[in-house]
Amino acid sequence: MSIARIEKVQQILKKNGFATTIVTDLSSISYLVDLAPSHMGERLMALAIPQEGKCKLFINALYPTEPQEEFDVVYHSDSDIATAGLAEYLPAGKTGIDKFMMAKFLLELMGQRSDLEYRLGSFAVDEARMIKDEDEKEAMRFASKVNDQVIAMVPGMLREGMTEKELSQLMNKEYLRLGDPSSPAGPLICFGAGSAEPHHTTGDKKLEPGDVVLIDCGQTTFGYNSDMTRTFFYKSITEEQKKVYEIVREANKRAREAIKPGARFCDIDAAARDYITEMGYGEYFTHRTGHCIGRDVHEEPSVSSVNTDVVRPGTCFSIEPGIYLNGKFGVRIEDLVIATEDGYELLNFASKEIMIIE
Amino acid sequence: MSIARIEKVQQILKKNGFATTIVTDLSSISYLVDLAPSHMGERLMALAIPQEGKCKLFINALYPTEPQEEFDVVYHSDSDIATAGLAEYLPAGKTGIDKFMMAKFLLELMGQRSDLEYRLGSFAVDEARMIKDEDEKEAMRFASKVNDQVIAMVPGMLREGMTEKELSQLMNKEYLRLGDPSSPAGPLICFGAGSAEPHHTTGDKKLEPGDVVLIDCGQTTFGYNSDMTRTFFYKSITEEQKKVYEIVREANKRAREAIKPGARFCDIDAAARDYITEMGYGEYFTHRTGHCIGRDVHEEPSVSSVNTDVVRPGTCFSIEPGIYLNGKFGVRIEDLVIATEDGYELLNFASKEIMIIE
Repeated sequence: MSIARIEKVQQILKKNGFATTIVTDLSSISYLVDLAPSHMGERLMALAIPQEGKCKLFINALYPTEPQEEFDVVYHSDSDIATAGLAEYLPAGKTGIDKFMMAKFLLELMGQRSDLEYRLGSFAVDEARMIKDEDEKEAMRFASKVNDQVIAMVPGMLREGMTEKELSQLMNKEYLRLGDPSSPAGPLICFGAGSAEPHHTTGDKKLEPGDVVLIDCGQTTFGYNSDMTRTFFYKSITEEQKKVYEIVREANKRAREAIKPGARFCDIDAAARDYITEMGYGEYFTHRTGHCIGRDVHEEPSVSSVNTDVVRPGTCFSIEPGIYLNGKFGVRIEDLVIATEDGYELLNFASKEIMIIE
Repeated sequence: MSIARIEKVQQILKKNGFATTIVTDLSSISYLVDLAPSHMGERLMALAIPQEGKCKLFINALYPTEPQEEFDVVYHSDSDIATAGLAEYLPAGKTGIDKFMMAKFLLELMGQRSDLEYRLGSFAVDEARMIKDEDEKEAMRFASKVNDQVIAMVPGMLREGMTEKELSQLMNKEYLRLGDPSSPAGPLICFGAGSAEPHHTTGDKKLEPGDVVLIDCGQTTFGYNSDMTRTFFYKSITEEQKKVYEIVREANKRAREAIKPGARFCDIDAAARDYITEMGYGEYFTHRTGHCIGRDVHEEPSVSSVNTDVVRPGTCFSIEPGIYLNGKFGVRIEDLVIATEDGYELLNFASKEIMIIE
């Protein structure tokens, strides 16, 4: 499987005229080869993938690594120039750089090899990762199943006066029980006006009657991620909240229905955005409609107005329109889908009806 | 305080002829100004510090930020070129780049401004961060006090057959109780042969009589970090283990005693390394002697053979020699110290005597 994934990347390199690409992102490395250090801190691990032939792994010797069928290993130590091995190895030509590579390594490499053409190179691995194989789809379905189970428990967990953090802890316990016991989840919980901040931090705000309860949740379940948002209403709902909710729900539906053979990511974004704009809330939908997801919660590419790529079957992404009325409340409704040959497969089945929790 | 810290950085920029430096590392940004998003994911937040005058913060509009005395705010959205604002703003000349800046932003910026001289620029903030002020020293002392308390409980926690993960959970509970309740700790626990791997992962290995128990632990306690290693022996000790332990303990002592006015980081490294080499184990001491520490566990610079800088009072760093006999066992003994005008202040007081736990 590893070999097949590397060959997929090499074909993309060839098509784009890259001599090599350098992969430093740990999720991408573990996708390509059987290696999974959970973090390298400030140290270097770089998998150089040539257009053809065997890869080379450049790694700090503090992380002993057996060479494998797919790669040879070149060590460096803390007192070496970390990228010296890479600089010596790299063939002339267009050289792909991992989008997450640390600037200190890139600048060091550039200092040694000013002859190379440095280009953002992650697209090759990102493109391979974008299309999920059957095992990956199954992992995505399982992760979302757990997510549906946990969100279904939330109405029973709400208590007047509880804090966002307390709800987060209750939910986390269920993720550990029903999903992956080794992977703590940190759901984003927004009570009241916090729901109007798309990047609120789960905090000490206490639940009060009349609060909007926005929950953006998921877990890394055995290596693959779930991600869903539901918005509830605690004890009461205003006419404005009802109106906004229905607009967001319809936008979510329209975006999903736009996933058809030949549709571009920007068409899906437009389906949600145009409707929200038409209803008068365009300026309050402040983010893209979605993102790809898999081994990372945010993968490339985005479901955004500027992404004109056609959606390909096997791509897994979120549909998450929202309306945020600063200082008042926000509503977001998010599902995961996998694009298919003739439409899409929905991964989240938790209800999107208006729910006023008593 | 913020202003004073920024001025310290600006003086360093001036001395080194930098027109600007770009800071993207969240610990560095929160050290300089009153801003603390815990993560930005794949999005950009960059604080541009000019040699003189007010800073400019370039940030994704999903993270609304009030301008402050120290900086103006320039927003971009998900559908903009994230670094376009930076490209427009940057004055000609030497431009410092954060060592952790993502390559995607650096390459994008380089594509727009090929006239700038890009240089690694983090040293300016790192140098400021290296010298701890009184509040920071007090925070470091407190964090290490908690660490001493928790390590003191470990002998009472050990049970035959318990796993490394179980011990880690017990310790974590104490960090949350005695230290910072909002900051989970993940001590590195190595039972038996795992102690010979400097970057072992805490796992399911069960504690057996005769195991070496190596514990590298610490917590981010209210924003500042502790870091200590102790090595215990479960039920018995071999002659070779005793010998290796005493060598490492003496190396730890010699390294600490080398912290004198005028000493360079490499002199401190050499004090530990030369002794271990003299005793015949030089090739088994496979890492640097230590690292600076503060808001991050690993800060710049290293206590290593290649760092010829003179240690300045107020610098807080680890002293952590170790000997690793692959497949057998390893011993590491680590303390934190703060360099003073005439030597050093020790932050960890947990005993370094040989301890065989019954």
